[in-house]
Amino acid sequence: MKALEEKIDKEGIVYPGNILKVGSFLNHQLDVDFLMEMGREIERLYKDAGVTKIVTIESSGIAIAVAAASFMHVPVVFAKKTKTSNLSGESYVSKVHSFTHNKDYDIVISKQFISENDCVLLIDDFLAVGNALNGLIDIVGQAGAKLAGAAIAIEKGFQGGGDALRAKGIRVESLALIDSMENNKIIYR
Amino acid sequence: MKALEEKIDKEGIVYPGNILKVGSFLNHQLDVDFLMEMGREIERLYKDAGVTKIVTIESSGIAIAVAAASFMHVPVVFAKKTKTSNLSGESYVSKVHSFTHNKDYDIVISKQFISENDCVLLIDDFLAVGNALNGLIDIVGQAGAKLAGAAIAIEKGFQGGGDALRAKGIRVESLALIDSMENNKIIYR
Repeated sequence: MKALEEKIDKEGIVYPGNILKVGSFLNHQLDVDFLMEMGREIERLYKDAGVTKIVTIESSGIAIAVAAASFMHVPVVFAKKTKTSNLSGESYVSKVHSFTHNKDYDIVISKQFISENDCVLLIDDFLAVGNALNGLIDIVGQAGAKLAGAAIAIEKGFQGGGDALRAKGIRVESLALIDSMENNKIIYR
Repeated sequence: MKALEEKIDKEGIVYPGNILKVGSFLNHQLDVDFLMEMGREIERLYKDAGVTKIVTIESSGIAIAVAAASFMHVPVVFAKKTKTSNLSGESYVSKVHSFTHNKDYDIVISKQFISENDCVLLIDDFLAVGNALNGLIDIVGQAGAKLAGAAIAIEKGFQGGGDALRAKGIRVESLALIDSMENNKIIYR
């Protein structure tokens, strides 16, 4: 999605350690008009995939998932990062390692919200090594649901998570796919 | 908003201790078509208020804030619940006590995303005693921004937070305002 590459070039900030900050439109402040355009593009990519439910992870996946769902007219379920007292009954749980925060956490989805009758589209803001996405794929498998694929705003292709999933035959669509960001220069695939 | 009251009556579950769970459409699974209707109603209520920015708190405020912003065409900024390594530079911070989780946490917004030139609409999914909303109001004050008011999906009126803010002259619009939910019977104001 050319418009997203231009937005990253204009507003993104590259920090040492391959960190890309897009807090001005995707992670802290949300440019909602632009987010809706990304949602429309995800709908275009997956409109024939039979998606019945979008699944994401709190917090920063929620906004783009809602944008896509507003065009696809399916519910969103967001995985919670810890088991809270607001969650009742049995849940699907998967363990995820966060490199950003250097710790493990559980992602949790109540069993009542995904079933074997669902065809799930996974949506997230970033894909790097793919730990969060693999946790969601694990949960989709636990539920016995069909996996339509994943839609990602920004994939750091050089960290390999997306290609590893594609090699397993999983459809991964990234609206911007970064092959390199050395010396503050972002190269797209 | 009559449709929201009907949705709560149909899908909400009341637990002892005045807990209302609406995980099927607002807190865990998101009924995005319905969420967009709530967003449209918030736009109708605040369309003449000169709003330049919507501010909410992660996680469950994000979806309804995005829905409203898609009609109001203003950015959303979501306060983060802890200072993460992804936040750079100086931030506004306010302390909030959560009764749900029985602990204090900091809410944090980067200073670059709210300024004295903003007119802020606060949006959240729930309003009870008002601790989270008071934290956001504190941050709006720190930024020197104008406060247009607050838009809430579900207010538990009997916990007093909304009326305390109204008594201070702050505009608080709740799409569903619950006056009582004793004996599993929800009474709206």
